[in-house]
Amino acid sequence: MAKPRSEIPSATVSRLALYLRELQQSERSGSSSVRSGWLAERLGLKDSQVRRDLSCLGQVGQRGVGYRVHDLVASIQHVLGTDRSWNVILVGVGNLGRALVGYRGFDQLGFRLVAAFDSDPEKIGHSLGLLPVQDLDQLESFTSSEPVDLAILAVPAAAAAAVANRLQRSGVSGILNFAPVVIPSSSSITVQPVDLALELQRLAFSVVRRKQEGLQLPTDGDENP
Amino acid sequence: MAKPRSEIPSATVSRLALYLRELQQSERSGSSSVRSGWLAERLGLKDSQVRRDLSCLGQVGQRGVGYRVHDLVASIQHVLGTDRSWNVILVGVGNLGRALVGYRGFDQLGFRLVAAFDSDPEKIGHSLGLLPVQDLDQLESFTSSEPVDLAILAVPAAAAAAVANRLQRSGVSGILNFAPVVIPSSSSITVQPVDLALELQRLAFSVVRRKQEGLQLPTDGDENP
Repeated sequence: MAKPRSEIPSATVSRLALYLRELQQSERSGSSSVRSGWLAERLGLKDSQVRRDLSCLGQVGQRGVGYRVHDLVASIQHVLGTDRSWNVILVGVGNLGRALVGYRGFDQLGFRLVAAFDSDPEKIGHSLGLLPVQDLDQLESFTSSEPVDLAILAVPAAAAAAVANRLQRSGVSGILNFAPVVIPSSSSITVQPVDLALELQRLAFSVVRRKQEGLQLPTDGDENP
Repeated sequence: MAKPRSEIPSATVSRLALYLRELQQSERSGSSSVRSGWLAERLGLKDSQVRRDLSCLGQVGQRGVGYRVHDLVASIQHVLGTDRSWNVILVGVGNLGRALVGYRGFDQLGFRLVAAFDSDPEKIGHSLGLLPVQDLDQLESFTSSEPVDLAILAVPAAAAAAVANRLQRSGVSGILNFAPVVIPSSSSITVQPVDLALELQRLAFSVVRRKQEGLQLPTDGDENP
């Protein structure tokens, strides 16, 4: 039996998404079965960790044979919710928005970009990939005629909260928030923050910690443990 | 006593970085002291969580008075390693690279962008903010003359591993990896991955889970718990 989603820890979810990425690559290159050890090596994890994570999916592997790639892909997609397709809109067509739209593989993960919005008259009407950039004023009229599941919010910090409110009232279920402000989840909308400055801080933290742990000769004199 | 960095869990590190962001905003708007409850409310966390996290910093608050913003900022910066300045280079000047360079607040967090590299002749020599884009061939000659702590890797997937190797040989201590391939950390370099497709998958997972938990009326018929 697969575990109910509510019992799968967030770190496992992230790893399942990584396994999925590797397995889909492997499937495209013609592999039909893999062993947990192969995934572990590809991702720098312990074999036992991979096996424990995959056990969340229920009975998907066979002793001595490994996992059928196709079945494993399907199981992970089902657990992650990416076995269906999600209609996604982009709000805020700056450099980040453009980078996101160009991001390899959104499509094959089941995320379908259906519209892009901006409030800048210089951007409205221009094309973004295959989509025209629409006036942000048209958000509600779009969402009332087309189902939208998720929104990528890439507007400036000062505008983010107001746009998030409009998205929530429009029935959007989830926001991937790149604006460096906190937008709380509510009963009707789930907000997943991505703060790029915060990622850089986490990296700096890890570097300092690893130096302190003596994995590397310290190169700075300013670290007082 | 503050906890050694090695004992601070990754989730706490992320929240400390969030507290820092809020506290710096609060400091700029003139506040001199805050209570844990204020931070909790701003960030949608429990007060007890905030107090537990801040206790990692040692004795920084006073009962009945709260926390002095300036001291708290300094303590968090010290623990995160952002009380020093980090020289950062950007490798890969696409839309994502441009977005990152324009990202608000890298500077005030102690991250100093000192160079940007690309291998595309159409980009080399053009300016990116205040910096000229340099030929990636010049990476080693740059790092041998200027200290570089961290690199933001925003090159296509196919090029990422080779560039990461060069960064490691150049003595860079950490890589923030935006390429959708796994680059393992080693004893001399720490790699922090940021996979934007993966973040979208985590969001989709949370949306499905919240619907299943009945926080919202299900709108899909395709979910079999």
